[in-house]
This record gives sequence, C-alpha cells and structure tokens, in this order.
Amino acid sequence: MVSNFRFASTPNITFGAGKLSELYNIIPNFGKNVLYVIGGSSLKASGKWDEITSEMIKSSINFHSISITGEPTPILIDNAVKNFRQKKIDLIIGIGGGSVIDTGKAISAMILKNYSIKNYLEGVGDKVHDGEKIPFIAIPTTSGTGSEVTKNAVITEVGTDGFKKSLRHDNLIPNFAIVDPELVVHCPPSITAACGMDAFTQLLEAYLSPVSSPFTDALALSGIKEVKENLISVFRYGSSDINGRSAMSYGSLISGIVLANAGLGIVHGFASSIGGMFNIPHGVVCGTLLAESVKANVKKLKQIGPDGEHSLMKYAKIGALIDGNYYETNEDPSYNCSVLIENLEEWTEQLNIESLGKYGISPKDINKIIKKTSLKNNPVHLNHENIKEIVMNRI
Amino acid sequence: MVSNFRFASTPNITFGAGKLSELYNIIPNFGKNVLYVIGGSSLKASGKWDEITSEMIKSSINFHSISITGEPTPILIDNAVKNFRQKKIDLIIGIGGGSVIDTGKAISAMILKNYSIKNYLEGVGDKVHDGEKIPFIAIPTTSGTGSEVTKNAVITEVGTDGFKKSLRHDNLIPNFAIVDPELVVHCPPSITAACGMDAFTQLLEAYLSPVSSPFTDALALSGIKEVKENLISVFRYGSSDINGRSAMSYGSLISGIVLANAGLGIVHGFASSIGGMFNIPHGVVCGTLLAESVKANVKKLKQIGPDGEHSLMKYAKIGALIDGNYYETNEDPSYNCSVLIENLEEWTEQLNIESLGKYGISPKDINKIIKKTSLKNNPVHLNHENIKEIVMNRI
Repeated sequence: MVSNFRFASTPNITFGAGKLSELYNIIPNFGKNVLYVIGGSSLKASGKWDEITSEMIKSSINFHSISITGEPTPILIDNAVKNFRQKKIDLIIGIGGGSVIDTGKAISAMILKNYSIKNYLEGVGDKVHDGEKIPFIAIPTTSGTGSEVTKNAVITEVGTDGFKKSLRHDNLIPNFAIVDPELVVHCPPSITAACGMDAFTQLLEAYLSPVSSPFTDALALSGIKEVKENLISVFRYGSSDINGRSAMSYGSLISGIVLANAGLGIVHGFASSIGGMFNIPHGVVCGTLLAESVKANVKKLKQIGPDGEHSLMKYAKIGALIDGNYYETNEDPSYNCSVLIENLEEWTEQLNIESLGKYGISPKDINKIIKKTSLKNNPVHLNHENIKEIVMNRI
Repeated sequence: MVSNFRFASTPNITFGAGKLSELYNIIPNFGKNVLYVIGGSSLKASGKWDEITSEMIKSSINFHSISITGEPTPILIDNAVKNFRQKKIDLIIGIGGGSVIDTGKAISAMILKNYSIKNYLEGVGDKVHDGEKIPFIAIPTTSGTGSEVTKNAVITEVGTDGFKKSLRHDNLIPNFAIVDPELVVHCPPSITAACGMDAFTQLLEAYLSPVSSPFTDALALSGIKEVKENLISVFRYGSSDINGRSAMSYGSLISGIVLANAGLGIVHGFASSIGGMFNIPHGVVCGTLLAESVKANVKKLKQIGPDGEHSLMKYAKIGALIDGNYYETNEDPSYNCSVLIENLEEWTEQLNIESLGKYGISPKDINKIIKKTSLKNNPVHLNHENIKEIVMNRI
C-alpha cells in the first residue's frame, strides 16, 4: 500500500555541466537589481565570478555582493538585512556551499521583516515566519547539503549554549536551482569528502525515515546509487572527473529533495547538537558518526523483533545496492546490513574523515551532547546508552 | 554519467485517503471567493460535494461552481472566463477527471486575458502565454492523466480539422494537488481501465524518452511497479479496494510528474491526432494502441543496432519488473521485451479496451491520421509504414 505522504514543491531545477549560463536568461524575469551572496575565494579563484560580473555589466543588471566565510550566524544575517533593506533588491542569488546558500535563503526571507532572525528560528524564537520573501536562486559549488532545494536555512551560534537551528517555511524553497557540476570541479578533497558523506547520510536517513514514501524512496535509491559509485573517485580525482562530479551533484540535489520530504535521523540529530557546541564542519560530524549510527540502529532494530524488520530490510537493500546486487525481500538482511556497515567504515577511513576528538570533543562533553541530541526521524528509538556508545566510539 | 536535465517545479502535494479535508485548511490562504470546477454527477452522487459545500458555508467562504461534461473546448473555456471574470475569484479548485482539472487550469490562466484561449494554444494560435494566472488547486477523481501536477491544459476541438492541443507554461502547474484515493473508489470499471492504461502509457513513454533523467527514471519505475501490481485488481474490485486505488492514484500522480519533465512518445502522438479527429476517450486511444506501439518500437530498435540498445534495455527492464524479476544489463533484452508486449496485450484484453473501429475509425482515415501524428519524444524514429501498421492492427 502507498501510505500517506506530503511532497513539498521543488524549485525549477536546471542540471548539467555549463548550465550556470542559464542564470543570465533567468535574472531579467525578476528585475534589474540583484544581490549576490558568495563564499570566501574559490568562486573568484576559478574565474567564474569574473564571468558573472561581466555578464551583469553587459546586461545592465545592477548588482551588489556580499562574501561570507563560515556558517551563517544570527548577527551575520541581521547585519546583511540591515545593509541591503533600503537597496530595493529584486532578487538574491546564492552561489557557494551550503552555508552560502543558507545565508542567501535567510536574507531573502528576513529582508521584509523588522525583527532579528533569532525570533523566527525553530526552538529559539517565538515568532512564526509567514513565508513572505523576495525571490531567491540557489547555485551550489559543493556536493553536500542539498540546500538548493530545501525549505530551511540552518543558522548557527556556536558556544556552550550554542545552537544550530532552522528558519523554515514551504515558501523558502528557492525559486530556481541551477546545479552545474563544473562549479564543483575544483572543490578540495577534504571538502569533497565531508560534503559527500553528508549527502550520503541525508539520502540514507531520509530513506530510513518512518515518513518516507515510495516517492522519496525511489529518489533516494537513485541518489545512493550515484554517490556510492563516485564518492571515492571524486575524492581522489575530482579535479579531472566531471562525470563523477556530475553524479555527486545529482546525489546531493536528490538528498535535499528527500530530506525536505522525509526528514533525517540520529546522525543529523548529532549534527545539530554537536555542531552548535563545537566548531566542526557539518559534513565531518555526519561522516564520522554515520557508520557507528547505522551499527547502533541495526543492532537495536534486531532487538525489537518484527517491528524492526521493515527498516532492517531497507538497510539491507542499501547494502546490496552498494555491493552491486539486488536484495530479495525473503533473504535474511543480516549479511547486507554488515556489508553496508563495513562499507561505511571503509569510506570513513579512505576519505580521512577525522574523529570528534580532533575538534576538541572529549568524554566530559558526552552528557551535554546526549541532552541536546534529538532522534529526529530515526527508524528506531535509541536510549541514552545507545547514543553515548555512538559518540564514544568516534571521540 | 548523469546527463543534463530540467525538472519543473511540482505543486505542493498532499497524498492519502481522506486528505480531501486538508482543502479546508488551504483555502483561507488564498482568499474568500472560490470557483469550483466539477464534473457531471459522480462527485454529487458520492456525497462529497455536499460535504464540500457545507464546509464552505461553515467557513463563510463564498463559492461558485461550474459543472462540465466531456473534454474542454475553446468555447467552453472562453464562456466560463466571460462569466466569472467580474466575480473577483481568488482561487479556482478543479475536482474531477483530467478534463475537469484541465478546465480549471485553463480558466485560471485565461481569466486575466482578453483574447480567446485559441490564440494561446500550441500549434493553433500565435500568442505565447506569460504564465500569469490566479491560484489553482487540483483534486483528481480518476487515476489517469496526472494533470494535477502538469503545466499544461489539453483543449479539444473535435472534427475533420479538429485538434487536441495544449495551453502550456511552467507557471500553470497547480499551486496544490490533493490526491485522495477515496475520491476514486467509485470510479466505474471502464473509466478505471482507460485511465489506468493512460497512466501506465505515460509512465512507460516518459521512461523511454530520450530526455528522461535518472530523476524521472527512478520515479517512473516506482509508478510502474504500483500500476502493474494493481491495475487489473482495481478494474475488478475497485469499489472495495482502497489500497489498490491508492497505488493507482500514486502511479497516476507520478505519471504526470515524469511526463511533465521527460515528455511522451508515439502513443500520445496518436492521442493528439486521433483524439482531435474522433470522439474517443483519451485513455482508450492510449490503451488500445500501447501494445502495438511498443511492438513497433522494439522491432525498430532491434533493426537499428547499437543505437537501439539502451532503449531496448529499458523496455526489458520494465518487462522484468512486470514479471517480478530483476533485469541484468548483460542479458539479451529480447525475452523481457516479449514479456512486456505479451503483458500489455493481456491487459488490453482483460480490461476490455475497445479497438478504434468501435469509434468509427476505418482504414480510409489512416492517411489523415498519419499526417497529423507526431512522434513526440519516441525512443526511435517510426516511418509512415510503421505508424500505419500500428493503427491498422487496432482498427
């Protein structure tokens, strides 16, 4: 039976090498005054920023730009909003990694509001955003977060009472997403690795979510297939492997679509708690905790008997897919679950994903981490002991 | 490699038995003055129309309604637009089969225009629609066209110089689609059969399209799986089989999404030519010509050698899926292609899909049909002789 589901509207998506150029046809539909949100330096180093600005001048488009490094904080968003509110911006374009796109998304949503973004963050403020925004186009330069197709912007305040929380509304889905693998070609190996593990985690957790649907399942598996075939290769040879980059861009895009509609699990629970407490890249939290989290989930699913069978079968299906086989539903899932776990452990090692200890996290932080970690849409309940074990094994 | 693709925005989709009730929460977001477009009598007979109207009265929503039978013609749309233009409608809601939804979609797009819809139809008029419309919600009561998620409305003028052409714009995608299988439960067997064959044809033709992508392929296969498992069963026991109806509603929804993004093939070429010339239900044209068209395509693909291999493999994959097997890419596709064709022939017979002759089509019409039939995104070129053979075998 097809169970009930919701599927949020997607942006208009243009996918393919060289498709950045379509941006220039789209802009005039929105107006003549554009704000670009870009990252630190890589877009400039690649020559793409020069290409964009000269196109803007050629088409008589008035443009401003703001360059950000690191993850967006409430202060960063509030200041940007203050600076650009009077400029009558028609359109915001975010070109960069997940942080840049989330910054653009947040500015597009806050520029019409008079309060700090903090008031509108889930679990932080008490105001509910009404979805009113100015148009926003997202153009990723990493293959990781899938933020180009999601309805939330993650805002971070790091510290003991830090948080990593979302501004969220159906209407915050970007109007357009241009996914051009050429923009990812020069992404350095360490970022390629962390982002790739993030994308895989999102695909896997959305597939295992209790609110997944045949719709999100079909997409998730198609993304998993591309990521598993290309993750290690783009880490090693990414700067010359446009086909691999293309596959990873696809996997990342799909991971955003499925997470927006099926949610995520315990790994992203950690990403939120640990990411709020420590200065650690999002993809590293995901990558370093994925194998251990799957191990804990599989163990618990086996313990709970018949209620766990459906999810075990899904883990086994991914294991078989990674192994290049088909999983028959009457098979014992144990073998393929082990294949999956071993494979994730191998990836973690081959991709040099660091352990939590490298970022200053130690056993004394465990209780606070447990307290702040939500299970989200994890396929099975994990208790404090289970959660502790996952983290301890990766410190 | 993941090839270039576009994916048009989808509506916000709510799927599930009983989900019609969500309509009442959505309406106030758009306004207080609603136009319902409904079909002939089945919605009223089911008691659902009474439920809707009493909810409208309870919530003080002002509403009008227009009931249509048959496929929308230019005159029908122009008259409806004339009648409702002055009423300051905030929102149009189409509840019915594909014709009803297309009527609602067309009215929502034409109510702001001063010319006849004929001027904006592809291949008929010389004006290009700019996408400006009033909001539209689509609620299907058949599982067939997938119109609840597409960006076009098919308008028909039957006659010697008749046509079946689209008003099309990205922005005409409905704002919301509510897919509630309970609304399809009482759909009569003959309509269930024709619509089911239409949905299957759409899934298959989009999957075989040269512009399909891993995105549309993954979705198409998930729809094909549901339709193949439930088509015959809902035809026979549909009035008591909510799970089967749910699966068919899913297949139909997905068929709309994939056709909107990958296009269709020769069968829908016939649906347009024959459907414009004769009074024959759309689903019957598709259903009656599907097996013969697949046969002709497979034969031609075998003739063209290596260029045909990829598409043959895709046909074989569907054949294997229908047979409950996995297709290994190193297998000879012939066996599974035959399985597919035989299966389609069996369905056509079991579902009592009539031949073209029953609708007054005879060999003397062949030349005109050939002249008017476009191949659309067919996986292989078919010449006049090939097209003639398909039609002759189903007269």
